[in-house]
Order: sequence, then structure tokens, then C-alpha cells
Amino acid sequence: MRKINTYEKSRAAFERAVKVIPSGIYGHQGPAEGCYIPIEAFPLYSSKAQGTYLWDLDGNRFIDYMCAYGPNILGYHDPDVDAAAARQRAISDCTTLPNTVMIDFADLLVDTVACADWAFFAKNGGDTTTLAAMTARAYTHRKKIIFFKGYYHGVAPWTQKIDYAGVIEEDVMHNLYCEWNNFEQLAELFDRYKGEIAAIIAQPYMHGNFMDNQLPDEGFWQKVRKLCTDTDTVLIVDDVRAGFRLDLAGSDHYFGFEADLICFCKALANGYNVSALCGKDFLKNTVSSMSYTGSYWMSAVPFAAGIACIEKMKRLDLPRFLIEKGTKLTKGLIETSHKYGFDLRATGVPSLFYLRLADDPTLRLHQEWIAECVLRGVFFTNHHNHFINAALTDADIAETIEITDEAFAVLRDRHPV
Amino acid sequence: MRKINTYEKSRAAFERAVKVIPSGIYGHQGPAEGCYIPIEAFPLYSSKAQGTYLWDLDGNRFIDYMCAYGPNILGYHDPDVDAAAARQRAISDCTTLPNTVMIDFADLLVDTVACADWAFFAKNGGDTTTLAAMTARAYTHRKKIIFFKGYYHGVAPWTQKIDYAGVIEEDVMHNLYCEWNNFEQLAELFDRYKGEIAAIIAQPYMHGNFMDNQLPDEGFWQKVRKLCTDTDTVLIVDDVRAGFRLDLAGSDHYFGFEADLICFCKALANGYNVSALCGKDFLKNTVSSMSYTGSYWMSAVPFAAGIACIEKMKRLDLPRFLIEKGTKLTKGLIETSHKYGFDLRATGVPSLFYLRLADDPTLRLHQEWIAECVLRGVFFTNHHNHFINAALTDADIAETIEITDEAFAVLRDRHPV
Repeated sequence: MRKINTYEKSRAAFERAVKVIPSGIYGHQGPAEGCYIPIEAFPLYSSKAQGTYLWDLDGNRFIDYMCAYGPNILGYHDPDVDAAAARQRAISDCTTLPNTVMIDFADLLVDTVACADWAFFAKNGGDTTTLAAMTARAYTHRKKIIFFKGYYHGVAPWTQKIDYAGVIEEDVMHNLYCEWNNFEQLAELFDRYKGEIAAIIAQPYMHGNFMDNQLPDEGFWQKVRKLCTDTDTVLIVDDVRAGFRLDLAGSDHYFGFEADLICFCKALANGYNVSALCGKDFLKNTVSSMSYTGSYWMSAVPFAAGIACIEKMKRLDLPRFLIEKGTKLTKGLIETSHKYGFDLRATGVPSLFYLRLADDPTLRLHQEWIAECVLRGVFFTNHHNHFINAALTDADIAETIEITDEAFAVLRDRHPV
Repeated sequence: MRKINTYEKSRAAFERAVKVIPSGIYGHQGPAEGCYIPIEAFPLYSSKAQGTYLWDLDGNRFIDYMCAYGPNILGYHDPDVDAAAARQRAISDCTTLPNTVMIDFADLLVDTVACADWAFFAKNGGDTTTLAAMTARAYTHRKKIIFFKGYYHGVAPWTQKIDYAGVIEEDVMHNLYCEWNNFEQLAELFDRYKGEIAAIIAQPYMHGNFMDNQLPDEGFWQKVRKLCTDTDTVLIVDDVRAGFRLDLAGSDHYFGFEADLICFCKALANGYNVSALCGKDFLKNTVSSMSYTGSYWMSAVPFAAGIACIEKMKRLDLPRFLIEKGTKLTKGLIETSHKYGFDLRATGVPSLFYLRLADDPTLRLHQEWIAECVLRGVFFTNHHNHFINAALTDADIAETIEITDEAFAVLRDRHPV
């Protein structure tokens, strides 16, 4: 039997944190936001990271399937990316004038991403979704933006919900909402708001939280693309989460269409802090006309890291490799669940698989299982997709299956048929 | 006579950049935004940086008075900050769970900044001004925000002007504008919009572009503070630009009042990418209730850099030192202008001095002088405040005066009395 983790040091650290930080740990990485990991199993703080492993403050080791919620795509401390970043750091990082590594990075993105004629760099994924929305409004002289229900496009007020703290009705009054894969409903919105729709913003497939992830229906994206083209509406793909785990040429390319604007962050530089908006030529002058910048947006180190990251992902043909690993893992997990008479479902593209134990519609059984996995060293979360990284080995997958087997056994003991 | 810079390599790089990056170099660091440096003198790209010096792509060396527009406060490649960052990088940076260095940094800010009971970390200065505005709206259940004319609070749509590309009227319809130092006008706004004003947002003094910088009139901030307290309005100080160059306890502390929320970025970690919102206890629960986070907001390396930066600034009693250096420099510049019959004015706090040649209201003479300085290796800009950093020596100041003397001589030759 595996050792069961305990978290004394993390608990003590959290006590200290809540005194000086709102929520202690805010946002998706904290215990307050939803119930991503049952609190009794949540390790809270890390002490080190290497490859596919994360150690918490109490010294427990985890096979980390969250990958910093995306950024860790090559493995923590990837030697090639870190070496490129260190070389650039010795020269310059955040300076009064940009370094030409910025141009090299833009060149590489234009060469790599199918729909990219240009690249614009910032810090947050949300900087790029906001710039995309502003670009669409400036270009079309229209105001309305269509979102697919279950979306996440960052935390700027215009992306949030009216009942969120700090959001006012004017922030979201031009947002329209459509069901994923429902082209008829989308076409109705275009009819009803003829000449008013600036953009559609969408993730390449529906990888929202608290729901099975849904791939696009056959032909859905092609119909959306045609509708946008026919109505001069800007088609924005938010590839912040999925980017480079489906297709290095962009997740739009994976699904056989071309976005007008595509947003990248997370996996772009293996954790070095940079995001990018790429887009088509006809929108370049509009972006040039905007007042949009930030204190650190031309920092050179993340550009060097991004170049090394993309070059290595190309060498490894990485998305294919990650999808294979994810397929092997999820197949193993599902088989293990059947062994104990449970019905585990895996949805989404396997390189960012979403899990749900379908035996209990309240999701409590699923949460119990996740807790038992985490307590034994497999870092899953309840209701968010997971991420595969390049450092994950077959031995790690085997160990994961072994641990989840034990977790299913515990669950079956506790809930006999 | 000094060598006159030429910029062949930078020009060639820019040609390459405009093909793949909107504007080539966007925002405040680029040649398109206003006329910060006359284009014939603008070096465009850097090749390396050290201490107070920046080298451009053509190998020209500059004494850099822009300091990456603020972040460089201890000197480029400060050994103490870089060592702390490297130590943390060897452990972990962007991971699934935060490192406790995040708590250490919050503790240090709470100990350092007078009005801070807590700290919240993000990436852009604008992340913190937006969070501040959302917090004020959530806390007060009011919508309107008062800005002082000449302000800059980032690039989020709500901070911009109605005539900016991509901004719609709903983004800015609850913004109210007041003249700096005009308390009567401010009080009138509070009368007219009684019970509707969520916040005042302001830089600690008016350091807008294209205008002489204006310190607060005696008692102005104290009256503003009282008005906010009496009306339960949140007082937000945007210390992104001035922070740590006036007072390590906050620029509000320098002017003898306390903000409710204070925004930091730039000088916080000597160029490592991090920003912070600090605030008073009564707003902590409101911040805890918000959905506000980002992919890289808990990256550990910038936290370690920030701790080292603040500790070193404390050891050096840095703001006093920077103000002394700035005073010495601006006094020398003004005296040199008088030598040639010109009337150079320096305004603002000397650690972030603003320059204007008052002999020509069209500002063209000023731009000519700036160009002659830059062409000889002193990196000034036309109509933006400058920044002093800790690595600036008396020898650098002497060299600066010598170069500006030559620039004034050229100007007088060209424009005889």
C-alpha cells in the first residue's frame, strides 16, 4: 500500500498566507475557487519541481497532471529552454529598447502558426483576448461579441459574468451567448443582430470546467468560419489553454479551419512569462493603431525561452507525442475503473484530457476518487481538464495506473456494490 | 567633439520587424507613439545593458535615463537581485502549486508599504489598476470612477479614451474627469454624483506626458483623503510609475496620507515581471471574493527578485539617494542651458524628473535638443518623465552634463540669438 500524504507544513504556510494575501492563494491555484481538489487532499504549496514531478512543502512527490495549468509542456526545468533563457539573461531582459530576439520570436511564430501573418507580445493570456476583442471592434465598428457557454477567456471585466464581484452591466452588455456546437442558434444570433456582431471568440473545442469536454461536431468550425467570412465578422480562437498540445500550427489548423486572430500563452515558453496574439494581415494595421502596451511586454528572456520551446516542440513533433501519451494513460485509467465496476469517462483531446466518474451525478464520488489519487501522489483535479507534458514517461503512466487502482479499490471498499 | 551615433543595424532590424509585428515596436517603446525621441536620433533596438548603460544594436553606448521606463531602479544586472532570482529558478518558477516565496514577498510588502495590510500579485501594472477599480465597485456597489486629467493607468479599455481605437462608449461611460490640484472641481463632482462614486484613481502627483509635471498643492491630498473617507469612496493610488523612487513606504506616505489601495509594478523587482496591489484590511474580503488570476501570476522567480530588490533598496535608503542624484543632475542641466541663453525647466520629483526647454512653446526646439543629446549618447526622451537608477555615478552625471553642453552649443549655433 502506498504512503498517504500529510500536509502539516503546507497548512502552517497557508495560515501565514491568509494574513497577508486575499484568500491565501487566489484564483485557480487556490483551494477557495470551486473544489478543484478536496481540501483534505490539497497540498497547497510546492517546494520544488523537475520534469513531470512536483514536490509539495511537506516533501510529498506528485506526478503532476496539471503542468502549472498548462505552461509546463516540455517538463519543469527543460534544459534547452532554460539554457536559452540564461544566455539571453546574461545579455539583457527588460530594457528601454527591445532586443531583436523579439523579431526572431515573431518570425518563428509566423513560420509555425498557420493563420499568423504577424505576432504581438504581451504577458497574460487575457492581454491577448482583450486586444483581440478591441481589434475586432475597431476593425468592424461593431460592438457585440459572441461567446460559447462554458467559455473562459481570462479575467478582464468584459469576459466575466454580470453576477461576478466588481463587474458592472456595462462591461458585459454587448456579450451574446451561444451553445457549443449549436450552429442554428449561432445563425439566429447573426440574424437577430445583423450588422452588430464584431467577433466570435471561442476555444478550439469546449474544454470548460465542471462538464465533459466536447469536440467540435463534424463541419461545425467550417460553417462558423464561412458565417464569419460572409458577414465580415472577426473569428477569434482563444488557444491559451490548448495551444501547442493539439497542433503546433494552431488548434484551428488541427480542426481544419483558419482563425482571423489566435491567442497564445501558457505552453508558449514552457513557463517563462509571455503571451502572443497572432493574426491575419488584414487586421495588422488595426492593431498598429491601438494604444496597447505594458511595462514588461518586451522583456527579452521570455522571447528567447519561447524560441527554444517552439523549436524543441517541432523537433519532438510534440503534439502527436502528447496525444499518444494521453491516449495510453486515459485508456489505462478507464480499464482500471472497469476492474472495480466504476465508469470513468475521459473527454477532450487526450493531451488535455478531462475526467469524470459517471457513476454519481452529484460528482461527489468523483471528488472522493480524485482525493484518494492525490493523497497517493497523482496530481489530478476534480473538474478541470488535465495536461500532458513531454517529460512524462511510460513508467510514470504505469505508476499512475497503479496508484489510481489503489484509489478505486479504496472507493469500492467504502461503497460496496 | 563627441562621436555622432549612426543606426544602420537598428534600421535594418526595424525593416524586418514591421513585416511580422504590428508597428514594428508597439507602445511607449516604439517610434510611432507620439514623438518620444525624434526618429533620426532614435536607436530602436538594444544589444546589451549593464548598470546605468544601454548599448544599441549598432554598438552605441547610452547613459540610459529611461531605465526601461521605470523597472531598472538598481541598475541593469544588479548582482543581488539576479543571484536571488537564479537561486529560486534552480528550485522552481511557474508550477501547479505556488512556492512559499509568495508569502515571504507579501510579508515584506506589508512590512514596507505604510498602507498595506495585504498584497495581491499579478503581471502588469494594469492588472492591478483594473483589480483596484473592480474592488472599489464591488465594495461600494457604485459605478463611477474619477480620473485626473493627464492620467495614465494602463491600457485596459476602462482606462482609455472614447476616441481610442477599440474602445466603446460603454467602457468609459462611468469615468469622470477632474483637473489635478483642483479640489473645488473634485468636490463639485462629488456633489453632482452623490452616492455614485466608487473610487478616485490617481498617480501620487501629476506626471503625465507632454506637460510639466505638477506636485500636489499643500494640503491637496489631505483634503482628497478626507473627502473619500467622509463619502466611503475608495482612494486608489497608482504608484506603478513613481513607486519606490519617492518613498519605500509608498508615494502616498511621501505626501503624508494613506491610500486605500496602491498599485505597484515597474521598480518592484528591478525588471523581473511582477506587479502588486496592496491595500487596507477593510477591502481584503472583497478582493478574496473576486475571480481574478492569470497563468503566470504565481511564478516564483519574480517574487524572489522582488524580495531582493526591496531589501537592497532599504539597505541603500534608495529614494533619498535617487532624489539627490536627480537634483544634482537637473541642477547641472539647467545651469548648462543658461550658459547658452536657454531656459530648461525640470519638474516633478528629481528621481523621475521631467524636462522642457521653455524657449519655444511649439516644443520643437526641445525635441531638437533631445535629439542632439541622444545622438551623443545620453538617452533622454522628449515629453515623458525620466528615471534615475542606483548605478548612476557622479562621473555619469558629469559626462551627461558635458554631452548636453555640446547639444546646447549645437542648438545655439543653429538658432543664434
